[in-house]
Amino acid sequence: MSLLYEGKAKRIFSTDEDGVLRVEYKDEVTAGNGAKKDHIDGKGRLNNQITSIIFEYLKEHGIQSHFIEQTSETEQLVRSVEIIPLEVVVRNIAAGSITRRLDFDKGHEFETPLVEFFYKNDDLNDPLITDDHVKLLNIANEEEIAKLKKMALEINKALVEMLDSINLRLVDFKIEFGRTKDGDILLADEISPDTCRIWEKDSDTNFDKDVYREDRGSIIDTYQTFLNKLEELK
Amino acid sequence: MSLLYEGKAKRIFSTDEDGVLRVEYKDEVTAGNGAKKDHIDGKGRLNNQITSIIFEYLKEHGIQSHFIEQTSETEQLVRSVEIIPLEVVVRNIAAGSITRRLDFDKGHEFETPLVEFFYKNDDLNDPLITDDHVKLLNIANEEEIAKLKKMALEINKALVEMLDSINLRLVDFKIEFGRTKDGDILLADEISPDTCRIWEKDSDTNFDKDVYREDRGSIIDTYQTFLNKLEELK
Repeated sequence: MSLLYEGKAKRIFSTDEDGVLRVEYKDEVTAGNGAKKDHIDGKGRLNNQITSIIFEYLKEHGIQSHFIEQTSETEQLVRSVEIIPLEVVVRNIAAGSITRRLDFDKGHEFETPLVEFFYKNDDLNDPLITDDHVKLLNIANEEEIAKLKKMALEINKALVEMLDSINLRLVDFKIEFGRTKDGDILLADEISPDTCRIWEKDSDTNFDKDVYREDRGSIIDTYQTFLNKLEELK
Repeated sequence: MSLLYEGKAKRIFSTDEDGVLRVEYKDEVTAGNGAKKDHIDGKGRLNNQITSIIFEYLKEHGIQSHFIEQTSETEQLVRSVEIIPLEVVVRNIAAGSITRRLDFDKGHEFETPLVEFFYKNDDLNDPLITDDHVKLLNIANEEEIAKLKKMALEINKALVEMLDSINLRLVDFKIEFGRTKDGDILLADEISPDTCRIWEKDSDTNFDKDVYREDRGSIIDTYQTFLNKLEELK
């Protein structure tokens, strides 16, 4: 059961079973690529529970992910995959970096959901890249790029519908994908308020890490309220 | 004959003839988006002559541009077009911003030429954008994007062959396109050592604005030598 990798918000351990990993969600929260950082009791539990509910929901809607099962408040088992070094961002509404980068007004609704690829590389500050860069950097081939975009849009569609039913709007989210030994592409990493922007319909309330980024209240209360809403769905 | 537009390196005037503009090349040189700036006698003459030769050459090779004819040492007539706000960059060899942005070694030869779009917007610092951004920003539609890329690669092919025949390597270049009233897309702006990187084969010598950016000698001598080489082709 050795520690294989420790990231900002999770630790990954090997297990007795070949091809299966244990993920432990940490009580750490960071923003601005680590510039702001805090330990917040209970945050790991919330993100583990939220990600587990969302990955179960996506499975029921035909989206293959690395998720196997939640095994404790802060842990889950996942299939071992080789992470593709892309942050795949889907945007329905303009917020965050794209308002500064391309001067879209915050709240601008895109005609069609926008998929963006960022190269996961801390030294380069995770730059935006084009499909041609993805190919030249040998990150993925043409067929895989098409599959990543298709999956990202399917995940978006399923999540938009899920959140709409509890009176929430999915503004944007970041996902990562991994390859199995057989070369299949699976949704990996997590989907939680750390990696999404979620706004309440007809109010200024949001249920995501912007509360922490912008010092606008308790991240625990925010994530717990979001989790309670997700549990209404069951 | 009123001044319609003044840019960093050129002035554009109306003419008596409908749809025809006069371009005057200035003796100004800038780098780093205007951070470095100088007046250099003779620079306008050189870029006007070089662009005229290159646009004539491209015309003979089936590339439609706005260029009509050179009318004096520093002037040319062009067709009036609505400039598409994209800097279209084609790269054969890594140099400049892409070495910092994606950590390609300077001199790395790309397997296939890379086409990049940058959004011409000084306030936003001309950011790299993807095809989907081009569409969402209403800069060009899907069909036009395909046409821009096709033309950029055809221009690259013709220029690589031209320069190869005078023992030079085309590292990269930036071009702009415009739409005619009929919606046709034409190559516009200029192609000169201000907008290209050109390296001598088997030596460290280059014939482009990097000489100015990096304070490595006389820009006039450099551009004049390049013009002399182009004139060998006639």
